[in-house]
Amino acid sequence: MGKRVPHHDGSPLYVSTQTPELGDVVRVRVRVPSDFGPVHSIRTRSNPDHEPHFTDATLVASTGGWDWWEAPLRVENPVHGYRFLFVLEDGSTGWLGSSGYSLIETRDSEDFKFVSYPAPPPWAKNTVMYQIFPDRFARSSEADGRELPIWAEPAEWTDEPIHIGPSTARQFYGGDLLGIEQKLDHLVDLGVTMVYLTPVFPAHSNHRYDALSFTTVDPLLGGDDALISLVDAAHARGLSVIGDLTSNHSGDAHEWFTSSHLTPGAPESEFYYWLDPEQKSYVSWLGVPSLPKFNWAAPELRRRFIEGEHSVVAKWLKAPYNFDGWRIDVANMTGRYLDQDLNAEVRQTIRKTMIDVNPDTILLGESTNDALGDFEGDGWHGAMTYANFTRPIWGWLSKRVEKSWFFGLPYGTIPSYTGLDVFEAHQRFAAGFPWRVRLHNMNALDTHDTARFRTSALDGAVPVAFGMSVTLPGIPVVFAGDEFGLVGDDGEHSRSPMPWDERDASASTIDLYTQLIHLRRDHVALNEGGIRWLHAGEDVLVYVREHADECVLVVAARAAFDVEVELDGHPELLWGETDATDSRLWGDGPSFTVWRLPGIVLPSF
Amino acid sequence: MGKRVPHHDGSPLYVSTQTPELGDVVRVRVRVPSDFGPVHSIRTRSNPDHEPHFTDATLVASTGGWDWWEAPLRVENPVHGYRFLFVLEDGSTGWLGSSGYSLIETRDSEDFKFVSYPAPPPWAKNTVMYQIFPDRFARSSEADGRELPIWAEPAEWTDEPIHIGPSTARQFYGGDLLGIEQKLDHLVDLGVTMVYLTPVFPAHSNHRYDALSFTTVDPLLGGDDALISLVDAAHARGLSVIGDLTSNHSGDAHEWFTSSHLTPGAPESEFYYWLDPEQKSYVSWLGVPSLPKFNWAAPELRRRFIEGEHSVVAKWLKAPYNFDGWRIDVANMTGRYLDQDLNAEVRQTIRKTMIDVNPDTILLGESTNDALGDFEGDGWHGAMTYANFTRPIWGWLSKRVEKSWFFGLPYGTIPSYTGLDVFEAHQRFAAGFPWRVRLHNMNALDTHDTARFRTSALDGAVPVAFGMSVTLPGIPVVFAGDEFGLVGDDGEHSRSPMPWDERDASASTIDLYTQLIHLRRDHVALNEGGIRWLHAGEDVLVYVREHADECVLVVAARAAFDVEVELDGHPELLWGETDATDSRLWGDGPSFTVWRLPGIVLPSF
Repeated sequence: MGKRVPHHDGSPLYVSTQTPELGDVVRVRVRVPSDFGPVHSIRTRSNPDHEPHFTDATLVASTGGWDWWEAPLRVENPVHGYRFLFVLEDGSTGWLGSSGYSLIETRDSEDFKFVSYPAPPPWAKNTVMYQIFPDRFARSSEADGRELPIWAEPAEWTDEPIHIGPSTARQFYGGDLLGIEQKLDHLVDLGVTMVYLTPVFPAHSNHRYDALSFTTVDPLLGGDDALISLVDAAHARGLSVIGDLTSNHSGDAHEWFTSSHLTPGAPESEFYYWLDPEQKSYVSWLGVPSLPKFNWAAPELRRRFIEGEHSVVAKWLKAPYNFDGWRIDVANMTGRYLDQDLNAEVRQTIRKTMIDVNPDTILLGESTNDALGDFEGDGWHGAMTYANFTRPIWGWLSKRVEKSWFFGLPYGTIPSYTGLDVFEAHQRFAAGFPWRVRLHNMNALDTHDTARFRTSALDGAVPVAFGMSVTLPGIPVVFAGDEFGLVGDDGEHSRSPMPWDERDASASTIDLYTQLIHLRRDHVALNEGGIRWLHAGEDVLVYVREHADECVLVVAARAAFDVEVELDGHPELLWGETDATDSRLWGDGPSFTVWRLPGIVLPSF
Repeated sequence: MGKRVPHHDGSPLYVSTQTPELGDVVRVRVRVPSDFGPVHSIRTRSNPDHEPHFTDATLVASTGGWDWWEAPLRVENPVHGYRFLFVLEDGSTGWLGSSGYSLIETRDSEDFKFVSYPAPPPWAKNTVMYQIFPDRFARSSEADGRELPIWAEPAEWTDEPIHIGPSTARQFYGGDLLGIEQKLDHLVDLGVTMVYLTPVFPAHSNHRYDALSFTTVDPLLGGDDALISLVDAAHARGLSVIGDLTSNHSGDAHEWFTSSHLTPGAPESEFYYWLDPEQKSYVSWLGVPSLPKFNWAAPELRRRFIEGEHSVVAKWLKAPYNFDGWRIDVANMTGRYLDQDLNAEVRQTIRKTMIDVNPDTILLGESTNDALGDFEGDGWHGAMTYANFTRPIWGWLSKRVEKSWFFGLPYGTIPSYTGLDVFEAHQRFAAGFPWRVRLHNMNALDTHDTARFRTSALDGAVPVAFGMSVTLPGIPVVFAGDEFGLVGDDGEHSRSPMPWDERDASASTIDLYTQLIHLRRDHVALNEGGIRWLHAGEDVLVYVREHADECVLVVAARAAFDVEVELDGHPELLWGETDATDSRLWGDGPSFTVWRLPGIVLPSF
């Protein structure tokens, strides 16, 4: 990636609207290096009925060593793919799609995409997420008075989480919603702006992904009133709060399941996949019997759960609960079984219901591998995925440590990625999202399901990794405790309770997170600016987030580096300690440095 | 592509069945170079509900410098994607999908695929196609007695086709079905085995893609009886015959259109997309008013045209007509308009009808660009596409000639491809097909819609190009006249009538085609063997088609070459003139050489 090549990424510099409607004529721009060679023609190529259709671009501006070309383009499909065709005066040709500039034809799946489905709410792309696992975050004094159910095995707050065996899901620390509310000022100080709560419905486990109802908040967490109070308190501090729904399955103690299990003819029978006429055995999540899988062909399941103002999806987004959105558990598996695939219907229905009752909400879906197919902007706004950020960053910035499973893959180790591999994985699994999906994608280093990044990180690599989380397109994520420097060897171990007593000892780590979160929040280019990669090498990655108001240059290094780049202006240091001129970047590593560059001023559309 | 890497391609060497059914446990094999490095584990990775699922492979054979590993795999989706995960003893990991071996994760769209939809008939993969445009192939004496309709402008057989303007579609040479029947022995001598007739229904043009009925054969071609006679005569000679249907549109003189145009409330109104209440203006193919586009949401259109034994699709596959299948015109556009996409329903319905009335038939679909999305084996058996063979081969083996449109792309020139580009385009646009779709893909150098390859070919390149057509996976295609050395600057010019009087002058060209067609027919490895690329350079491509009975090595060169390869045995010359040892290939170019290698003997599944 030495020589500059033509660039487009769907961000506001390049398209006249982020909220096109079917039939609109949108104007799209592409920038071409001035020294690219004489251009004969540049055209857009659309494919609305899978037959190519072209429009002509004209030169509209030349600035900073770039020529900007613009073309009109009618949005003819709900998700409208487009790319650019270059013909140079020397007769050579090239295609620009989301995977980059190619001398040979590119695949339709590599097209840039306009989305004419309703847009995410404007605030969502500006958030920094903080993930809370309620049992382990904070325990209010009210928890002492609650009687524990028979499945729960009480633990002291300072106990180590149990890694293996049936007690992992039973070990009960008693964190509750009032506990969270009492710690909201910590979140405000840290600078995060959105709280993601893992499930709060009653269940037979500490993780609560085995809901036994979706209509009430677990009394062990304080019940409905505690949720109302927590969300109100969060809103008062400018924090949004989203919940977690299991659209793929319920618990086997769920009222819908117990009423239909072994009961042919029960109204809820059609909600599940029974494997025998007696309704004894059934399909479940990964074969785990406590998590029976939903059959979304059932109209009544849709009505109760996801469709309309009286559904579960709707209830918690309305007053008095006022959740600001949902994270959907294993969104990827939802509605899929053998030759049935109702995933698109389910995700579109969920979003439609949300729009009807509270459009100012966000909808995120878990999809931990290749998420591109399901995340075209018709339902899920963004993905909780590990393919384009989490696994590549671990591969680049971790020690080689044995691990039988690595984020769901049986590698036996943390794999070894170069910086170039990180870039390529990002291009492969993120660049193909429609731009607005890319901005709502979760850039998580770890979650409640994974080991914690710090556990195996190269010395000094945490600022690099979290720095990339706050500067790449997408929503930065802090899994509660990361800012205290917690470690965890696996998903269970990572659920250790928050060490509130060690706040002072963790001050420098908390400060690091606070600085980087505020860096993100303070720069519009990091929230919505385009992305252009300037260098991808073994040990250093350089990219710039570009916007009309300002640009932000990011240098992420795992070892000493010295690279030549072409910058559009003089860099002004924003964060970090390495050095730069207009054409050279150098320093030690691991290191993370951020610079400001002038905004890109263009004629308005 | 120097060092050998693990390989799998879905051909019979690698999978225990080509006709799996949903729920079957299939056994899959992957071959690994013996010197690849100590293997810790090899696993299959499936993704039936978009959540990865793994099975373990074990070593089952070591032969010819390769280790063969095998794993069971349950087919859980109608189109079931899978790939292989490698973990080596040194901790490094890799993924093998249809795009090749990758050190970083691959996309779901790059998976190999099992298809549990009904399989194509067994004969179809062994065919060599001969495309006939009836008005220009041969004119029987019966044609003299036919009265021409008002639109037709009669031409003499030796006239040049008119390139431009309204007369292009009106110029009428009067070729007919009896004319074709009288020339069938030419086809038998040439060695082709399947005749593809462009439309034979009555129309208002010489190309007949503007059908005015689908229920009768054009009297100008001899009517129904002539078709019955032709197909019978072809069958008697071992030739199959397929027809051509326009599922995207009819002509504006079609009985369904004339009965509904300007006639709101007509039963056929729902068959088209009207743009005003008076049913005056309507959606048409590329805006051409004579080709109104069908709206496949109409149940009655489905019943009349594609669904059930009384439909158009069914009628011509049954006695007395006995077509052996259909080629579907602009299959890619069919059923697609704005936010409506009924393409999958239409193609699946067409195939279901065909299976019900005559399962021993083939269904091919035109899709001239990226065909991967629509060609997963649920309907179309193979594609008439230009992305993976036609355009790359032209780019590699043609002179740089100005051309405002190049197979539908406004390049302004024939583009310049290296051999490596050809390989990469093949990987990008063909390797992702399910194996059995790949075997039924049309490898056409030209068609009735395009310039003829010979027109701009590098001197001596025709044997290389047609040699690749008969040796790459897929159905070789001869557009009638190619074997006479005809040229054509564009689709109109390429429709020049067959110069039957010049047979003797064309003897060497006819002989070239005959030899290469028989080469293809004589070797099972060319019909159904796997494909492994051994070398892709600027000027030479080397690949081997592999089968248990024999392997066939192919060397296609556009200039002098000398390359090192690793062969599994000693090559025995089958066709051509270049040289080879077990580890080196060299010769002049353009040249095309084919060698036989021993078959690959493995334990049975």
